[in-house]
Amino acid sequence: MIPITDTRIEEYLNGLAPEDDPVILSMERRAKESDFPIVDRLVGRFLYLLTRLRQPQLVVEMGSGFGYSAWWFARAISITGKVVMTDYSATNIAFARSRFQESGLADRLDFRVGNALDIAREYHDIDILFIDIDKHQYREAIEAMIPHLAKNALVIADNVLWYGKVVEGEDDPDTGGIREFNDFMAGREDFFTTILPLRDGVMVSYKLS
Amino acid sequence: MIPITDTRIEEYLNGLAPEDDPVILSMERRAKESDFPIVDRLVGRFLYLLTRLRQPQLVVEMGSGFGYSAWWFARAISITGKVVMTDYSATNIAFARSRFQESGLADRLDFRVGNALDIAREYHDIDILFIDIDKHQYREAIEAMIPHLAKNALVIADNVLWYGKVVEGEDDPDTGGIREFNDFMAGREDFFTTILPLRDGVMVSYKLS
Ligand SMILES: C[S@@+](CC[C@H](N)C(=O)[O-])C[C@H]1O[C@@H](n2cnc3c(N)ncnc32)[C@H](O)[C@@H]1O
Ligand SMILES: C[S@@+](CC[C@H](N)C(=O)[O-])C[C@H]1O[C@@H](n2cnc3c(N)ncnc32)[C@H](O)[C@@H]1O
Repeated sequence: MIPITDTRIEEYLNGLAPEDDPVILSMERRAKESDFPIVDRLVGRFLYLLTRLRQPQLVVEMGSGFGYSAWWFARAISITGKVVMTDYSATNIAFARSRFQESGLADRLDFRVGNALDIAREYHDIDILFIDIDKHQYREAIEAMIPHLAKNALVIADNVLWYGKVVEGEDDPDTGGIREFNDFMAGREDFFTTILPLRDGVMVSYKLS
Repeated sequence: MIPITDTRIEEYLNGLAPEDDPVILSMERRAKESDFPIVDRLVGRFLYLLTRLRQPQLVVEMGSGFGYSAWWFARAISITGKVVMTDYSATNIAFARSRFQESGLADRLDFRVGNALDIAREYHDIDILFIDIDKHQYREAIEAMIPHLAKNALVIADNVLWYGKVVEGEDDPDTGGIREFNDFMAGREDFFTTILPLRDGVMVSYKLS
């Protein structure tokens, strides 16, 4: 494992990103207490920024957990837009639903329990596809979903540096899967792809047509 | 000085960002040979991505050097858009002009020699403002330019981690200037601001109205 960003830098950046949204704060607490892997606040803010810029009508999340990343998308999307959450875990999705209902944003969301690889295919003209499922599934996920993307869609994928293991000798299925996914996207001329060394690595890929 | 991103990670990311554009390649060579500080390829790609997403009509660069960052903006902007370059150095601007002319993109640019703080004020409804001048001038620059920004403008600023010195005890005018600039932007409620730990730190700030 390689620390991707110096920890003093991370602390500084977090210090510049204060938050008073009670949902964000309670979800961050829940993640910490249960050691559940959410994108962190800085990635959340980056998702928010990208969403404001892209102005999507449809965001599909593959791997939503209990809704932290979905919350950033939902706050940034226009009132007519929709965010689809998918997760294997009914408990996660139920938790997300109750949080979103309390906050009056639930009508912007579809709450779906099951395999993201199956559910996501039901949607078409996806403006933002967010990939955060098991890492060995990334390549399969993007190949299945490319026909479902809208014009100038954004594909955003989390953990594409996978604790830095992609640059080490490691060859477990997750590390190998991420490496393959990165090579696949970098090689496609119909997407403009770049990776930000933010937290565990965030890929942003812009569909050129 | 703190290495912001682990160097093995940087190498990996650069390896995934091959380039065959002769202008990019020759400008990168020139920067290396003359030890001139350009944003690097990964920041360039990020500027390209943001520009495609924001679809600006007017980009103003404060501190253009010989045109490397401007080249990324100019390739991403629509044919009706304009990129304003500013630099103290007539030699830098002349070099940029000749490169852009050879490539047929020169009509998308204004080539301006002088103090960016003066020149930028001539422009209104700026969709993307890029700040890369002397670091102690950042705060003055943004305060002067806020009235000149378009609705939902993006402010992008390079070097906002300043070799990591912002988190160390350093208190020279440049480090102090950057720290002050970061605090100022983070504190403004009319902008949504986040910093990416990409190369030397890139601030992206979205004007909320
Ligand atoms: C990293 S967590 C998601 C965190 C969430 N994106 C966030 O930042 O708040 C990954 C989640 O994906 C789920 N998951 C993994 N593979 C999946 C699949 N193929 N279909 C549905 N859910 C999956 C896991 O149950 C887990 O809750
Ligand atoms: C870091 S370099 C710019 C690199 C360029 N943005 C790129 O990435 O290709 C900074 C440049 O800003 C110029 N500069 C600094 N302060 C300035 C000011 N107030 N007005 C005009 N030029 C300035 C310097 O001459 C230098 O060429």
